[in-house]
Amino acid sequence: MLIIGERINTSRPDIKRAVETKDANFIQEEVRRQKEAGALMIDVNSGSNPDTEVDDMLWLIDIIQEAAEIPLCIDSPNFAVLEQAMRSARGRALLNSVTAEKSRYEKILPICKEFDCDIICLTMDEKGMPATSKERFEIATIMMEICSKYQISKDRLYFDPLVRPVSSEQGQAMEFLGAIKMMKSLGLKTIAGLSNVSFGLPKRRLLNRTFLSMACSYGLDACIVDPLDSTLMSAITASSAILGHDNYCKEYLEAFRAGKLG
Amino acid sequence: MLIIGERINTSRPDIKRAVETKDANFIQEEVRRQKEAGALMIDVNSGSNPDTEVDDMLWLIDIIQEAAEIPLCIDSPNFAVLEQAMRSARGRALLNSVTAEKSRYEKILPICKEFDCDIICLTMDEKGMPATSKERFEIATIMMEICSKYQISKDRLYFDPLVRPVSSEQGQAMEFLGAIKMMKSLGLKTIAGLSNVSFGLPKRRLLNRTFLSMACSYGLDACIVDPLDSTLMSAITASSAILGHDNYCKEYLEAFRAGKLG
Repeated sequence: MLIIGERINTSRPDIKRAVETKDANFIQEEVRRQKEAGALMIDVNSGSNPDTEVDDMLWLIDIIQEAAEIPLCIDSPNFAVLEQAMRSARGRALLNSVTAEKSRYEKILPICKEFDCDIICLTMDEKGMPATSKERFEIATIMMEICSKYQISKDRLYFDPLVRPVSSEQGQAMEFLGAIKMMKSLGLKTIAGLSNVSFGLPKRRLLNRTFLSMACSYGLDACIVDPLDSTLMSAITASSAILGHDNYCKEYLEAFRAGKLG
Repeated sequence: MLIIGERINTSRPDIKRAVETKDANFIQEEVRRQKEAGALMIDVNSGSNPDTEVDDMLWLIDIIQEAAEIPLCIDSPNFAVLEQAMRSARGRALLNSVTAEKSRYEKILPICKEFDCDIICLTMDEKGMPATSKERFEIATIMMEICSKYQISKDRLYFDPLVRPVSSEQGQAMEFLGAIKMMKSLGLKTIAGLSNVSFGLPKRRLLNRTFLSMACSYGLDACIVDPLDSTLMSAITASSAILGHDNYCKEYLEAFRAGKLG
């Protein structure tokens, strides 16, 4: 499981304050803590203030790369931010994200191609977010064809079937899981920013980790999560052991000995 | 989800002692606690001492029924125990269990038919426990046909694909989940005594609840568990909310307000 730490996001008040006051230590400590907790990649989002988004992103990338050797997930709906960020990012980054909307992919896919990076494909188009697993899968196949025209191979793509809140749309979680299954049957890589599933309900972490366990068993490859949520990380470690992705349950036993299993 | 409480089992030292000393209060308190925690049925197993198994079972059934109105799951490999227990059990009981082994089903299925009860069908035959989901499913279809000859309809049957420990047999959990999916596609009811999945590993409850969440998302209908494990019960409640089995997340919110979500 590719675990992407979601904490460097200026929608979080402490991150926003650290960016505004250029508190590099605070950001670098957040990065170290996420890496130590098991993050294999760091998501960076500076979108809360559109006027300073580019500058904030470039500053964040700079000080994060000073603190740790870890790939970045560049998170912005703005293609100009993605492009400038890619000029600063070392090593292979993941672009977050593109959709099947022409006005978006026309600008973003050339960046992906130029910098030879991976990219998250959200399964939505001009008509919005689809309701069924089949529609999600169809959009994924369309996006795969579009990317192919830009000479971006499917190995570069992570598909996110976009989970919706179960509080308002019951049945949607199962459609999401079904979409993962269909995508895996085609050899596609899958990703989820899954905390949306629990929106509007109490004990969100319980719902998030329960849903993540299910998604793992349908073949989820990557997730954007808070790696400091130890019960969630324990669910990922346990899921890998159960599903046979963890040879001889070695990582599970190591996590247990390190006192990391909540 | 049909939650069957597993605690009344003489392989547990405190239950064994209570049975030996005829401590009815202790047993009845165990039953009340399981019911209060959400058990909808109580499993009863007195098999630790074969010499007294029948008498112990009859005594347990008697005092459990004195304590609570709750259906029983009569748990014994011995057909004589099952038969005598059924003569004492009030209301509809669940027989635990039969297999596709002729020497077993020839004796047990007539009891199921006579008392018009439900029965757990373990997907194993004379060759032992199968390795793949397909073999599990094939045994289930054979068992369905055998039961049909005894005029026992498939609505009476709960199929258990028999999970094996992930510590020794990686890949088996996924075979189990695949079997659940195949059985559900045929409209069969499914059940699991899932704690076997974590045998030989530390933090067994973490593995059990993670696996149970996965099994719920593949369509599991019933489980034999310790309802006093509040984190496991929380995972079941969360799973129902996520999968749309809990209208308007009503039970989830009630459990939250009652402080039951761990």
